[in-house]
Amino acid sequence: MQRRPEIRVGIDIMGSDSSPELLLQAANALAPTLPSSVKLVAIGHPRLQPTTRLPYQSASETIEMDDSPLSAIRRKKDSSLCVGLRMLREKELDAFVSAGNTGALVSYAKMSLSMLPGIMRPALLALLPTKKKPVAVLDVGANLQCKSGHLIQFAQIGAAYQLARGIKTPSVGLLNIGSEALKGTSELRGAYHELSRLSQERGAFFSFAGNIEGKSVFDGNVDVLVTDGFSGNVFLKTAEGLANLILDRINENFSGEEALHMRGHLQDLQRHLHYAEYPGALLCGVKGIVIKCHGYSSPEAFSSGICEAVRLADEGFIQILQDKLVKKKP
Amino acid sequence: MQRRPEIRVGIDIMGSDSSPELLLQAANALAPTLPSSVKLVAIGHPRLQPTTRLPYQSASETIEMDDSPLSAIRRKKDSSLCVGLRMLREKELDAFVSAGNTGALVSYAKMSLSMLPGIMRPALLALLPTKKKPVAVLDVGANLQCKSGHLIQFAQIGAAYQLARGIKTPSVGLLNIGSEALKGTSELRGAYHELSRLSQERGAFFSFAGNIEGKSVFDGNVDVLVTDGFSGNVFLKTAEGLANLILDRINENFSGEEALHMRGHLQDLQRHLHYAEYPGALLCGVKGIVIKCHGYSSPEAFSSGICEAVRLADEGFIQILQDKLVKKKP
Repeated sequence: MQRRPEIRVGIDIMGSDSSPELLLQAANALAPTLPSSVKLVAIGHPRLQPTTRLPYQSASETIEMDDSPLSAIRRKKDSSLCVGLRMLREKELDAFVSAGNTGALVSYAKMSLSMLPGIMRPALLALLPTKKKPVAVLDVGANLQCKSGHLIQFAQIGAAYQLARGIKTPSVGLLNIGSEALKGTSELRGAYHELSRLSQERGAFFSFAGNIEGKSVFDGNVDVLVTDGFSGNVFLKTAEGLANLILDRINENFSGEEALHMRGHLQDLQRHLHYAEYPGALLCGVKGIVIKCHGYSSPEAFSSGICEAVRLADEGFIQILQDKLVKKKP
Repeated sequence: MQRRPEIRVGIDIMGSDSSPELLLQAANALAPTLPSSVKLVAIGHPRLQPTTRLPYQSASETIEMDDSPLSAIRRKKDSSLCVGLRMLREKELDAFVSAGNTGALVSYAKMSLSMLPGIMRPALLALLPTKKKPVAVLDVGANLQCKSGHLIQFAQIGAAYQLARGIKTPSVGLLNIGSEALKGTSELRGAYHELSRLSQERGAFFSFAGNIEGKSVFDGNVDVLVTDGFSGNVFLKTAEGLANLILDRINENFSGEEALHMRGHLQDLQRHLHYAEYPGALLCGVKGIVIKCHGYSSPEAFSSGICEAVRLADEGFIQILQDKLVKKKP
């Protein structure tokens, strides 16, 4: 993909825990600060169109947070979420940002967009801070249960993502409850075996660091952490919760100047742990840039998700990812 | 169980990542500091007997960390782990402490000891700090995959544990990736439904707080967090890893007096997050006090596990637990 003269990012303002008005206001405020080549397209209920000067795509239906994903995408074809993904497929958009129902977003993206070569299921990827360089964690919530084959594809796509970020031969680890090869479920043991084999093939584009425990992830010795969506989500939210607990302890027990600085430092760390909210998780595996912001995104977090979508579209991220995946064998 | 005139605690010195010599030294050093009514019984290879004055039970075999649990407990009946659990069954011991192979310990405990009323599978329970009172998390690693029925039993045993600690009508939460009743796997949805029902029965001994995300656990609004052993282990180790990351950041960026105090404070928090190591996780569900220390336990952590075993034996913990479970219906 060449650098496009115009970048069109679709903004789903409906169906999140934040009000559509709030998300639309965030987009309204952000738009004038972006380069003139970037066009934000708000997608939402017709009644909201008069409150914005942004290009607007009406969508008469809304998928709610507590809708069952599969029945929602069948019944609500004219929802903002479905309309936006179809516009992405038809190249009317270069990227799409939503803070709506995760299950519906994942399922309809899989159904409406093509998949990247060799990838069967989309996964949500979040980039998290460690003691060294950031680690790409996937899946953080798209697939509750995964077979070995899915985990192996997540490893490949996570490695391609880190390659695209400029990391040479990214190292991949499997989130597990011990480091020994026999630890964990049969799916994890199968993935361990196959990733060992793949990483030793000639021309392999990633190395395999074996099983990684939750406590070691933050040491920063792997570039990609592979996990099923349930454990990945527990991992992400536990880290966030603990950062919160520690901030709370500091607030309660310390009040001097150093504590103030430290608080700032930890709040920054915490914000990076909120990656799923800030700038959002990348739905990867599909041919299209889809950013999933958290359901209760603040206007800042939502804006940050939009900026991340602009950045990825601008660098032609999907094409890069696709090239890495196609070239993965010599 | 009346307070016993003598409390005998079996100490498995073999099969951990720490050397048997180190663990035996820890027990040697601890013994003289305990009340005279407490007798520590070291269980290990005959060659080590000359290095201790503690009562000693020889066990000719050792289950190693990387042994397959089920074949190990079949083949190595004279291992310290199996010998100790049989002594507990025969009431030659009042409690047993091991830092050995978790899978072998769980499987042989289930096989050799009776189960508490209504409980089918043992679970590892760790007590973790929150913003308010400590939360009992189970399972943190005994059962990788769980059916709804197992999760419900973990809820009951966790609630009985907290009742025994003096908490009236403990509140129980399910670790999940969202708060809505429909979130998560079918096992979690089944457990959600049944726990809702049980908690509304007349005479229910716990309340049900629904699904809890990893980020909310540390707010301290539930007394018991129920999870399968894989997710529970990820939860525990992620919390530990993040505390580590934050300590590291503080060490790197701050050096004043306040940072020093804060470091002390956080190290203390971190030590409590190491509950699985310090004082160890309680293997609950079986009729017998079994403490599982972490495989790479320091002498201090191992000693702390022994002290916890003494405390539980002294208060007649199993009898209390059993009474709560039997009386759970009116």
